[in-house]
Amino acid sequence: MSKQELPVVDVSEGACCAPLAREPLNAVEADELAPLFKAIGDPVRLRLLSLIACHEGGEACVCDLTSAFELTAPTISHHLKVLKQAGLIDSERRGTWVYYWINPQVLQRLSAILGPRQVTGLVPA
Amino acid sequence: MSKQELPVVDVSEGACCAPLAREPLNAVEADELAPLFKAIGDPVRLRLLSLIACHEGGEACVCDLTSAFELTAPTISHHLKVLKQAGLIDSERRGTWVYYWINPQVLQRLSAILGPRQVTGLVPA
Repeated sequence: MSKQELPVVDVSEGACCAPLAREPLNAVEADELAPLFKAIGDPVRLRLLSLIACHEGGEACVCDLTSAFELTAPTISHHLKVLKQAGLIDSERRGTWVYYWINPQVLQRLSAILGPRQVTGLVPA
Repeated sequence: MSKQELPVVDVSEGACCAPLAREPLNAVEADELAPLFKAIGDPVRLRLLSLIACHEGGEACVCDLTSAFELTAPTISHHLKVLKQAGLIDSERRGTWVYYWINPQVLQRLSAILGPRQVTGLVPA
């Protein structure tokens, strides 16, 4: 593909560009954001995150999550731990089961870094 | 943090939610998206992507990128290769130097998966 055929990226004043494309990320920001992207850089964790976000009532029991994969419970638990340590999800034990829900602000921050300004958030004002 | 203090995630009809939170990602989608997030799940690659996106004229010479880090040229080249293999950037050799530019559609797709619907793109219509 020659350079001439490339789409023109509008970075002119007033253009609605990704923060990433507005000014270079510094080392501190990059060190903070990279582990979050790394945490979702795995197909099982990406599906877990989506399953939790989509679950009725906004939270999912670990029992529902495990049954969606052909993986052992300890493997699922490991992936959930990675997502939780990154701050993408949170959890609470109630009786026998642990329940998980997403932190929508964190997802929204990642989305905003990569993309243009957004109209509305996952979390209502 | 108790469950009661959590923000309410509005997933009601008509709400403008992340595709990730609208219906569960299937295995094929997750297998396709995860390597892209993994590619930016590294602080050096995240900064490289940002530096390229911010560079005057929308493209950056490898010589400018290398000088921004206290890393060897082969290390920077390795990270650029990972970003290029993921489809996040593209490049062209001109004379001595290789020039890089981002693929804004790919960034936008990742942003859209994580966040609510967006007004405008990095690429003007």
